Amino acid sequence: MKDMARWAIGIDLGGTAVKVAVIGEKGDVLDHERHETRIDDGPDGIARHLASLSQSMYSRFCGQCGKETFVGIGVGAPGAVHTGTGIVCYPPNLPGWDRYALRDTMLQVLAEEYGLRCPLVLENDANMAACGEAVFGAGQEYDDFMMITMGTGVGGGIVIDRKLYRGTRGTAGEIGFVTVDYRGERVHAGVRGTVESLIGKNGIVAMGVETYRNHPVTAWSESFHGSELKDLSPRTLEKAAHQGDPVALEVWNNVGAILGIGLAGVVALLDIRTFLIGGGVAGAGELIFAPARKQLSASLLPSMRDGIEIVAATLGNLAGVYGAAARCFSFIV
Amino acid sequence: MKDMARWAIGIDLGGTAVKVAVIGEKGDVLDHERHETRIDDGPDGIARHLASLSQSMYSRFCGQCGKETFVGIGVGAPGAVHTGTGIVCYPPNLPGWDRYALRDTMLQVLAEEYGLRCPLVLENDANMAACGEAVFGAGQEYDDFMMITMGTGVGGGIVIDRKLYRGTRGTAGEIGFVTVDYRGERVHAGVRGTVESLIGKNGIVAMGVETYRNHPVTAWSESFHGSELKDLSPRTLEKAAHQGDPVALEVWNNVGAILGIGLAGVVALLDIRTFLIGGGVAGAGELIFAPARKQLSASLLPSMRDGIEIVAATLGNLAGVYGAAARCFSFIV
Repeated sequence: MKDMARWAIGIDLGGTAVKVAVIGEKGDVLDHERHETRIDDGPDGIARHLASLSQSMYSRFCGQCGKETFVGIGVGAPGAVHTGTGIVCYPPNLPGWDRYALRDTMLQVLAEEYGLRCPLVLENDANMAACGEAVFGAGQEYDDFMMITMGTGVGGGIVIDRKLYRGTRGTAGEIGFVTVDYRGERVHAGVRGTVESLIGKNGIVAMGVETYRNHPVTAWSESFHGSELKDLSPRTLEKAAHQGDPVALEVWNNVGAILGIGLAGVVALLDIRTFLIGGGVAGAGELIFAPARKQLSASLLPSMRDGIEIVAATLGNLAGVYGAAARCFSFIV
Repeated sequence: MKDMARWAIGIDLGGTAVKVAVIGEKGDVLDHERHETRIDDGPDGIARHLASLSQSMYSRFCGQCGKETFVGIGVGAPGAVHTGTGIVCYPPNLPGWDRYALRDTMLQVLAEEYGLRCPLVLENDANMAACGEAVFGAGQEYDDFMMITMGTGVGGGIVIDRKLYRGTRGTAGEIGFVTVDYRGERVHAGVRGTVESLIGKNGIVAMGVETYRNHPVTAWSESFHGSELKDLSPRTLEKAAHQGDPVALEVWNNVGAILGIGLAGVVALLDIRTFLIGGGVAGAGELIFAPARKQLSASLLPSMRDGIEIVAATLGNLAGVYGAAARCFSFIV
């Protein structure tokens, strides 16, 4: 008997990479690919590229999986995404986009050039990651949680009562743009002292460079290559900390504390107490989570401390494509 | 023909005063009173006092308004309020309360001592103020907004889709406990650099004292009574600013800017873009709102700036009792 399980194509559009996956409704990843984002081709070029990648996956899997059981394509994109209109606004890592009708352009290219007509769900990328964790990952056991993605940027997606909370215009969950140090030195995207300016990838590197410069030179700081500390990155800082380097540990303690301060704002405003942390930088795990928990508690009134949890997301860098598929299956809205 | 309009008793329990009002379903205030909060009597004493005030209002108005049309008593209380259980937790301005079953105690006293049996709705005080504005005040024209109360503390209530958003444990909306200056000097209730530590009443006074001390002595600073600046208060600072004193204007600009930074966090996380500002300190009006709007825009990405509004709440210090009545009428849940 033919397998009647439904399947979908999930796409995660980032500033450097496009991830594409074919995912079954039980959460089985039949294939996944990573391509470079064609930033220089502009919005139309990227829309055409995403359509072409979708078509390629579709034609490879429609024989094996069935045309009738294909439910559609889900796309997570950076910036403010209006789910209703399918318009992407001001994605910070895709220069020159301003407002772009990504969904309609993709649907048009798919229909006119490939003869493929199917539903296409467009959503903010961090929201898609939250959907992925909610349906297939660490979020399955929580009705209410916030997914935090720590990478180049610091993003977030909010799940309330097992539904995505998008806000009035689709930009909810942007924890990276919460200000925690309004008189501070760090500025990102024109805003001073935001969580992202401090513990986005560049912020962590800047903090690392400053911290190492405030300490005597050691074998570890030498390993980052001289006074420029060019090889200092979240990855090398993680390695140094795991090997006990006290300066790297100090940096991660600060990163975790700043994350905790940002999360305290979420608890105070939203009274959401479960946080799933994912994204490349979150690979540092307890190096970040332990000081974040400590600071989060210190930054809250006693009445707000009950039931706080900071846990690792479990889908890694596939959370976004999982979420895109989960939305296609309508496992979460 | 007898007037069949329903009526309710609204109570607003604060750290210094208890407000009690009799309110009809069209928003008509039949009477309102202000009593001192009997802090020294502890939770039981206050619960008995609230029951006695309710009984007194009920017996005065039940003849005129009708027993059958009385819908119940609404009570707004500080701290984390569990609407389901009727328990008040850790109200910061009511020392020694920890966790107290305010609703059940009030119901028991009303029934046993006064023979009055009626519904009693308990809710956080800032949430009640948000309900009041939503149903009878400036919030009537908005589906989604946040009510900010600026007084001794800085509180907030969130209305999403014309319903109160309480969070998982009833503490949502606590904008006063969002950290905006994590390395700053100001500490309130054990937390550093919160909105309330900076622009709660004490924070404004401290900022005013510091700002005047950094400027040459003027007739205005003299009017605050010498080097101690004892008479400096939000009220006198407001007067000074309205009369053009540049130092007072500088203080209000800073207060507004810090409010704007806190509101930017709300926009980023919740994507709520309408803010109603009430409470005693908000009497300063545009002295606060104008710099808040400017800073709010500067603290946001372009994609988050559309449709931002900061407007004055309209129910003054009766917002809480209006909201308590509105909840009794089930005009908002």
